[in-house]
Amino acid sequence: MESELIRWLRDRLPPHPLLRLGPGDDAAVLEMADVDRCVMTVDMLTDQVDFDLSKVDPRRVGRKCLAVNLSDLAAMAARPLAGVVAVALPRSGGMELAVALYEGILPLAERYDLAIAGGDTNSWDGLLAVSVTLIGEPTGSGPLRRNGARPGDRIVVTGSFGGSILGRHLDFEPRVHEAVLLNERYDLHAGIDVSDSLSIDLAHLVTESGCGAIVLTDSVPISNDAHQLNDEKTPLEHAMSDGEDFELILAVAPEQAERMLAERPVGVPLTEIGEFTAEPELWQVDNQGVRSKLTPRGWEHRFT
Amino acid sequence: MESELIRWLRDRLPPHPLLRLGPGDDAAVLEMADVDRCVMTVDMLTDQVDFDLSKVDPRRVGRKCLAVNLSDLAAMAARPLAGVVAVALPRSGGMELAVALYEGILPLAERYDLAIAGGDTNSWDGLLAVSVTLIGEPTGSGPLRRNGARPGDRIVVTGSFGGSILGRHLDFEPRVHEAVLLNERYDLHAGIDVSDSLSIDLAHLVTESGCGAIVLTDSVPISNDAHQLNDEKTPLEHAMSDGEDFELILAVAPEQAERMLAERPVGVPLTEIGEFTAEPELWQVDNQGVRSKLTPRGWEHRFT
Repeated sequence: MESELIRWLRDRLPPHPLLRLGPGDDAAVLEMADVDRCVMTVDMLTDQVDFDLSKVDPRRVGRKCLAVNLSDLAAMAARPLAGVVAVALPRSGGMELAVALYEGILPLAERYDLAIAGGDTNSWDGLLAVSVTLIGEPTGSGPLRRNGARPGDRIVVTGSFGGSILGRHLDFEPRVHEAVLLNERYDLHAGIDVSDSLSIDLAHLVTESGCGAIVLTDSVPISNDAHQLNDEKTPLEHAMSDGEDFELILAVAPEQAERMLAERPVGVPLTEIGEFTAEPELWQVDNQGVRSKLTPRGWEHRFT
Repeated sequence: MESELIRWLRDRLPPHPLLRLGPGDDAAVLEMADVDRCVMTVDMLTDQVDFDLSKVDPRRVGRKCLAVNLSDLAAMAARPLAGVVAVALPRSGGMELAVALYEGILPLAERYDLAIAGGDTNSWDGLLAVSVTLIGEPTGSGPLRRNGARPGDRIVVTGSFGGSILGRHLDFEPRVHEAVLLNERYDLHAGIDVSDSLSIDLAHLVTESGCGAIVLTDSVPISNDAHQLNDEKTPLEHAMSDGEDFELILAVAPEQAERMLAERPVGVPLTEIGEFTAEPELWQVDNQGVRSKLTPRGWEHRFT
């Protein structure tokens, strides 16, 4: 990392009990004596794919780059521990941009008690690319995986879906606190966060679990954003296929789901939208009771 | 990470005692019960800056992207534990490129007993960017830092310097085993790996240590590559300023350095090239005994 930026960063990083040695050496040093298992995740975000730097404040971009990674920890019901940030900056205005990215990253890191342990700063002739790697600590009965959904489990989701393109894909709140609390208080069987889309990430979850699912489309919580888009797609279609909601899809045993929905233990809405099935297929039932195949649609990184 | 690549990767990853859950979920799960402290480092490498993908086999590129990170662990005298790989791929030929990168990464990971825990795969209209994050475990008397050099300590380096552009910047062997062994057997005060250049990284080390150094230029081990370049710079100038040698600069107390050089406990050459001084400046003494200021020169990521 460039020395000027390291100095800037060192002045602004709050002390953290985990951090024995912060940015500026060849690696950071972390205290892990109390951590038996950790989870590790990385996400790289790029200009013109995950954000449009020509239209968006770089602080929001920096915030998103951290938030999507925190959302991955939430999907595992893991408590954030530490992270590193690597950037490839355009040559012109790089220092200013790096500072702005960190101005978006640091408050969110502090909010989630995450130690920013270090990073790597490069410049090149390309557009901005940001890679954030986090480690976290499993909570409750251990890391929440994708492969634990069982037939009969209820599909419970946090928040609402669709239309994140209007701004929520940048400013969403990762469901870290919700995931940790729910995983400590209830017996969750599986979980995933919605980055690609509600339908695609549900498909990922059933594939890994070797089961299927049936979604009651009338139950799907549709965000106001999805209603506002007002284009050729219905609000429900937006909710099922837009992606970047960064809400959680959870597999919860029926009696646990019932208790969870009655107790409403977190600040965000929890909604049961269907159930997992033995038959390894995805189905939807509309408000007329008509059953049809659910084809996963949404955002996927394609390359040839 | 794209599902096809994850499948390919899952088939090829050897089991690893640390890895409770590998690629394919929202995060990997690592066994850390025996790890009291860990080091964490990230390096992002980009096409046309750190390699030229139009001229170089992508396997060598993948290998380099991991090797530079292993070199950072070596600089801390840390044993590799686990790593994640994030890539931004050009849209055309992305899958083939990702596979080739991993074909360079996996054998090196196995050689250093590093668990590949996961990754993130994206495509975009830009050139290739690769970000590797590693965690490692300190060895011996703890992580080797940049700030521990003391006046009177000898400057000991591994290997030889200069001309890495001829190919060694891609195919170098990170000095992981050497660092761990030396740190266990001798009292090392400080260390850094040479990425920017011998003179610049020595400058980083003395700055962090609050001391200076004097280099006997006649002692500097010059690589054959530096002699082969045959351009306007002398082989010594190449050795001092080329960078990407990924050798180690160590600060070692005089009697320890003497013992180390006599015992030659590692397969690569160890050379004493000068000593650290109380006066916080860099000097060099040539083979005529002429003393002059040493100006750090080499590779630095510049951005405005």
